[in-house]
Amino acid sequence: PVKAPPIEQKLPCSLEELYKGATKKMKISREISDASGRTLPVQEILTIDIKPGWKKGTKITFPEKGNEHHNVIPSDLVFIVDEKPHSTFTRDGNDLVVTQKISLVEALTGCTVHVTTLDGRSLPVTVSTVISPNYEEVVPGEGMPIPKEPSKRGNLRVKFNIRFPTRLSAEQKSGIKKLLSTP
Amino acid sequence: PVKAPPIEQKLPCSLEELYKGATKKMKISREISDASGRTLPVQEILTIDIKPGWKKGTKITFPEKGNEHHNVIPSDLVFIVDEKPHSTFTRDGNDLVVTQKISLVEALTGCTVHVTTLDGRSLPVTVSTVISPNYEEVVPGEGMPIPKEPSKRGNLRVKFNIRFPTRLSAEQKSGIKKLLSTP
Repeated sequence: PVKAPPIEQKLPCSLEELYKGATKKMKISREISDASGRTLPVQEILTIDIKPGWKKGTKITFPEKGNEHHNVIPSDLVFIVDEKPHSTFTRDGNDLVVTQKISLVEALTGCTVHVTTLDGRSLPVTVSTVISPNYEEVVPGEGMPIPKEPSKRGNLRVKFNIRFPTRLSAEQKSGIKKLLSTP
Repeated sequence: PVKAPPIEQKLPCSLEELYKGATKKMKISREISDASGRTLPVQEILTIDIKPGWKKGTKITFPEKGNEHHNVIPSDLVFIVDEKPHSTFTRDGNDLVVTQKISLVEALTGCTVHVTTLDGRSLPVTVSTVISPNYEEVVPGEGMPIPKEPSKRGNLRVKFNIRFPTRLSAEQKSGIKKLLSTP
């Protein structure tokens, strides 16, 4: 007997699930046939164990979980991990990228921002150099887990959205010129 | 007789040529056949008149300029406008976009930048408001010509790359805090 082609289905996962790992129960409906060749509908629960660090595109295959028909080997059922968009983090390979809003004064004089990690910790990130618009502070080991190297993690990359004052008085302008102009 | 399928060829144009218009001479080699059916190679010069404002993808067709073969109508020769990358401008539809480097002091206290246009003029652009990193100054009518509405033009959009000081002294930092912090 020939085998029916695989059935593929997306498995949307939040970034938190891919960070911490998760167990997902998927209810499926399929037809099985008994010895006499009659088919009857059944429901099954499949358990998927999301490993920390899995990436979009990871495939989980349940062999022969498609419908049973006479003289055909049932399809494999394949779930494909998909990454749901996150409100604050984006993923770049093993790295996590987050953008923090700071004021111009903080950018120029130094600041500590607090990043809420995907497992809910408040992580302080202190920058003491001047933060220019394209500056990126890298926090090693605070990115995504790496499934094949459990002792390692990607990096957290913190970007900054610098809020400028909307208007400045003539006194502020002349003060800035005096302070920052290098003769 | 059937007609041979068209021959398509890219026509790379600089942004200056698409801005000002240009005349391009293209030398082509083809075979023509005489009354007795003999084919002989010829070279021809085709003249293409680039109209100001033409976009990437514009097609210029020279009917039946392909090789002549017995019992077949020669191919059309089709040139397709392609836009060469420019060192300073990018095109966004009818708009031109340019990025100017300014210092943080200029961003905060106002400045005039000089944009060299695609026809070689030095265009002064004065900004008197505070320039934040995503600020865009729009200069109406200094973009690309619009072929179908010769009286109109797109806009020039000036973006700014703000150079921050690399380090500041303790005195400069406390001065900035005093000047910019709103209580």
